[in-house]
Amino acid sequence: MPNLLIAGTLNLDDVETPFGKVQGIMGGSASFASYAASFFAKPGVVSVIGRDYPKEYLALLEQRGIDLSGVEVREKSFRWAGSYEYDMNEAKTLRTELNCLTEFDPKLPKQYRDATYVFLANIDPELQLKVVQQVRKPKLIVMDTMNFWIEHKKDALLEAIKRIDVLVLNDGEARQLFGTPNLVKAAQAALKLGPKAVIIKKGEHGALLFTDGTHFSAGAYPLETIKDPTGCGDAFAGGFIGWLAKTDDISERNMRKAIIYGSAIASFNAEDFSLNRLKQITEKDIEKRFGEFKEMGEF
Amino acid sequence: MPNLLIAGTLNLDDVETPFGKVQGIMGGSASFASYAASFFAKPGVVSVIGRDYPKEYLALLEQRGIDLSGVEVREKSFRWAGSYEYDMNEAKTLRTELNCLTEFDPKLPKQYRDATYVFLANIDPELQLKVVQQVRKPKLIVMDTMNFWIEHKKDALLEAIKRIDVLVLNDGEARQLFGTPNLVKAAQAALKLGPKAVIIKKGEHGALLFTDGTHFSAGAYPLETIKDPTGCGDAFAGGFIGWLAKTDDISERNMRKAIIYGSAIASFNAEDFSLNRLKQITEKDIEKRFGEFKEMGEF
Repeated sequence: MPNLLIAGTLNLDDVETPFGKVQGIMGGSASFASYAASFFAKPGVVSVIGRDYPKEYLALLEQRGIDLSGVEVREKSFRWAGSYEYDMNEAKTLRTELNCLTEFDPKLPKQYRDATYVFLANIDPELQLKVVQQVRKPKLIVMDTMNFWIEHKKDALLEAIKRIDVLVLNDGEARQLFGTPNLVKAAQAALKLGPKAVIIKKGEHGALLFTDGTHFSAGAYPLETIKDPTGCGDAFAGGFIGWLAKTDDISERNMRKAIIYGSAIASFNAEDFSLNRLKQITEKDIEKRFGEFKEMGEF
Repeated sequence: MPNLLIAGTLNLDDVETPFGKVQGIMGGSASFASYAASFFAKPGVVSVIGRDYPKEYLALLEQRGIDLSGVEVREKSFRWAGSYEYDMNEAKTLRTELNCLTEFDPKLPKQYRDATYVFLANIDPELQLKVVQQVRKPKLIVMDTMNFWIEHKKDALLEAIKRIDVLVLNDGEARQLFGTPNLVKAAQAALKLGPKAVIIKKGEHGALLFTDGTHFSAGAYPLETIKDPTGCGDAFAGGFIGWLAKTDDISERNMRKAIIYGSAIASFNAEDFSLNRLKQITEKDIEKRFGEFKEMGEF
């Protein structure tokens, strides 16, 4: 029985960066997040795929002890094509084929309903709410989103935010959702909706954690080469909630640590396409990088 | 005899931000930098003003123990007019009246030549070099610059960088000067030119320190209201070198502390126009904020 539930997508990705061009590779928020979380916990995934989804992609997750009984199989997989400019800051979506995603109606297998940690990766906020409603006694619900939902389903999104504990979003999304260029103000507006904590991801500039009365600022790992940033936000959130689920400690102090573990895993993820780099690393590599984060912030 | 020398401008500024519009206020890199440094040291300033420069502006610096014997008086003061958009990220220069600045040919008063700490604030790199040549035995030379010199005097700028110990520039300038979007690569390119350390200022995202083999990442103070960011970079650098001059310790460890002191003073500076906020604070306020920086980075 997984104590950590992750709802999100399992995509096929076509990605182009200045370092190469790959097609039909393993991607999706649930892939990156569950793999990252698997360094600390044994997550169960709720998602949907097509019959064309390669068996070896699923096997990779299963090898990590990830429960895939919540993955429905439909006709054709969700496919996303994106490219990054030289500065690697933002993906430009070239094409989106929703396919099976249009029929996604998350139903939790029985053994998922007692999960105490829940990560709602970036999907339609109405579906995120449906997942929340099926979990019996969640201890901590973490939620991510994206600009598309801010633009097209803002009401449902705000409704979902009221039901969760930790909101994770990037700086651009925070500014857009709360209508202010000031991230402190945006975080405070988010906290007023109900969450206990707000995490603002700033890519190469690190991440911020806000709670009522506390502020934590984490730097980013100084990467000389970023091959493909796809999935870094999901790997970050997966590592974050994985650490919390493992330690079963949701204090602000432990969230700080969780942010560093998430940042460490995300920094590895950017070093290669798809999950290629994550496949190579071990808990020991993550611990080493955690130590480097500590050293680079000391004064 | 000042052990800290600061070369830069003493302007009259016309500034417009979403929080107000002010004219003929005290500004300039040497004003902000020397005032910030005066919390820790007694700097001597090399600059040029016009006869129209208000006496009370000079008195404000003199009250802080700042030596102004290196300030030449010519006809008309340098005047800069700029505005900030809602996001407060970058000043838009509306007008520049160089006036006395066109005749600036820095000549150090005798008692300045034995200064061991030197801050070359943003002026023509050829003038920065002239200052360096007049200092007998500098222990640490810190240099700032701006996009204008990168575009118009790149050769002189690169020559100056070879002669200094710590290069301070913002992220946009670092990318522009070294032709890479990656700040780690930009910093490494800068270090190859000679400096022992490179500091990249990232405004609301904090600052990075790179030396050969070490990396330090400092967060920014979470300001809810930024009234006017003019001079923050100069206040940062002034606080940085002021702390180093006071402690006479140029180890990487102490530079980390100096960056936090610089960041603390710069964060105060953004809270009001001109030097209005700096005028109100004491060493105690700076120490308190230093403590808050420590707390917000701990995990």
